[in-house]
Amino acid sequence: MNNSTNITFTKLDHVRELMQTLPASNAAAVEGAQARNSQLTKPPGALGRLEDLAIWYAGWRGTDRPVINAPQIIVFAGNHGIAAKGVSAFPPEVTEQMVMNFQHGGAAINQLAKTFGAKMNVHALSLETPTADFTQGPAMTEADVCAAIQTGWDAVDSNADLLVTGEMGIGNTTSAAALGMALLGGDAVDWTGRGTGVEGAALQAKTEVVAAGVALHASKGDGLDALAALGGRELAAMAGAILRARVLSIPVILDGFICTAAAACLHVTQNGALDHAVAGHQSNEQAHERMLVALNKQPLLQLGLRLGEASGGALAIGILQGAVACHTGMSTFAEAGVSDS
Amino acid sequence: MNNSTNITFTKLDHVRELMQTLPASNAAAVEGAQARNSQLTKPPGALGRLEDLAIWYAGWRGTDRPVINAPQIIVFAGNHGIAAKGVSAFPPEVTEQMVMNFQHGGAAINQLAKTFGAKMNVHALSLETPTADFTQGPAMTEADVCAAIQTGWDAVDSNADLLVTGEMGIGNTTSAAALGMALLGGDAVDWTGRGTGVEGAALQAKTEVVAAGVALHASKGDGLDALAALGGRELAAMAGAILRARVLSIPVILDGFICTAAAACLHVTQNGALDHAVAGHQSNEQAHERMLVALNKQPLLQLGLRLGEASGGALAIGILQGAVACHTGMSTFAEAGVSDS
Repeated sequence: MNNSTNITFTKLDHVRELMQTLPASNAAAVEGAQARNSQLTKPPGALGRLEDLAIWYAGWRGTDRPVINAPQIIVFAGNHGIAAKGVSAFPPEVTEQMVMNFQHGGAAINQLAKTFGAKMNVHALSLETPTADFTQGPAMTEADVCAAIQTGWDAVDSNADLLVTGEMGIGNTTSAAALGMALLGGDAVDWTGRGTGVEGAALQAKTEVVAAGVALHASKGDGLDALAALGGRELAAMAGAILRARVLSIPVILDGFICTAAAACLHVTQNGALDHAVAGHQSNEQAHERMLVALNKQPLLQLGLRLGEASGGALAIGILQGAVACHTGMSTFAEAGVSDS
Repeated sequence: MNNSTNITFTKLDHVRELMQTLPASNAAAVEGAQARNSQLTKPPGALGRLEDLAIWYAGWRGTDRPVINAPQIIVFAGNHGIAAKGVSAFPPEVTEQMVMNFQHGGAAINQLAKTFGAKMNVHALSLETPTADFTQGPAMTEADVCAAIQTGWDAVDSNADLLVTGEMGIGNTTSAAALGMALLGGDAVDWTGRGTGVEGAALQAKTEVVAAGVALHASKGDGLDALAALGGRELAAMAGAILRARVLSIPVILDGFICTAAAACLHVTQNGALDHAVAGHQSNEQAHERMLVALNKQPLLQLGLRLGEASGGALAIGILQGAVACHTGMSTFAEAGVSDS
């Protein structure tokens, strides 16, 4: 455990201050990894994006031959006052039911964690107290959002070498859509999607909720203020975990629309705050593509997922494991006695 | 071992005969898997393409709750007479050097096999006797191509539950390009790409070699005749392995351009011959996209790979493992006590 990262956040200014001195990637490790990559037994560039991924990963891990031994997946769950407005195809009690399902090993993310050898943790954040309806006032007080950021911050295992954050929260695509619009511009209709499966009049009502929330809270501060006003506890916790990973030099794979919205709050607050993160996938939630483009993140996978729970990010663990295994395990032309053209 | 699949091929007609009675997917298993999928704890369709993959896999394995325990990767290597025409950025001896590298564990595919828990086998096919220059006559005699198909057929482990075939062969993107043009139409320039890295005048010369080969052998029979005339031993072996997998109900993940060209020979000979195969990825070799579209195969990954060796197919093993793990391991709404809307 790196003691310097044991911080207690009681004000958003504590987070802002921390974000002004985020560590950078290790330039020497990047250079070393680039040099190694050019000597491996393959035509130059033939592993495509895997080569870029391995070099990027090497930089954040501070070594030219990194390994991935300890991926961690964290799923945060929260309840949303806005769910009372009928923005989801599922009732709010499903959040807690799914937390039980995560704990009993029955959800998709449990199977994916096992498949890729990842440790998985679940944090339910005050499910009995939904956030406030953001069309009436801020979703969270400063104390609430700081407590949720703290939960995320504390949830990261300092021995992890890769982090995937994900979420569960009935109503949270509404929250993510509002954040997208507030942080990145455009209209409510650009950001509001089907979520768990709303359509027709319900989708129209959801879009109006997003527009009303953004109208109430627009132009009132930075990404962290938006997170408090329009977000949810699980979004704030993801933001906290992503920040902690940065401080611990643990690369992050982002999951889908809601995870990316939480990450966008950091990006808007401090440019470069997501340099240690890749987009695991582009989800089928319609506005995810727009959000990834705004963050300049090219997704690793595009398989039509729209589940959340960290599922798309978890699936991308295998891609990163493959990239790093090739980089670190392959022989050089000289070692293998292969002519390099 | 299923003894009924111990066949000796001495004529291409033996292969053609076999291809007329290929087994189909198990309809009851597909139906059972569809029913199960609809009860799992996720919104309908939220796992996107993973759901289709799991149901497809279930059908070929003949059970509604399949598992993947024994993936097999086979890399076939062959030498090409056409390589003497300078169509590659690497000299022909690299084929054999890379076979040694595979055997010693130093290539990309070795690392990927380890990452995804796959057994890996390497078969070098008469490297000391390159195929004939296909601009002068057929690359292989009927006996040659049958022997290579046989090698592929025999290489499949009947206990495998997933197969990825790949190749190594300096000059073989030229062979694959000629097959693409002969089987699927278009011009030589549509099918000829950079391979290991040729450009400029060398790429122009490569394109002319492709055009000359197809001009000499066009309209002389079916996909198997084209395989003999323009293919190579490693391509014929991949075709043999893909066929054997079909007879054993082992689903196949196709690799890149050359593997797909070998598969296309089967598709053109017998429509539906690739129903048990998915495209693992779309490679950066420019004509791969065109070939996948012609075969109506949507790639699972698109990461700019252009290495061969089964590397892109191997990377997609993780996607299929994730899909099947979710399908078979998740709880139903009833089991988990989750409200299903």
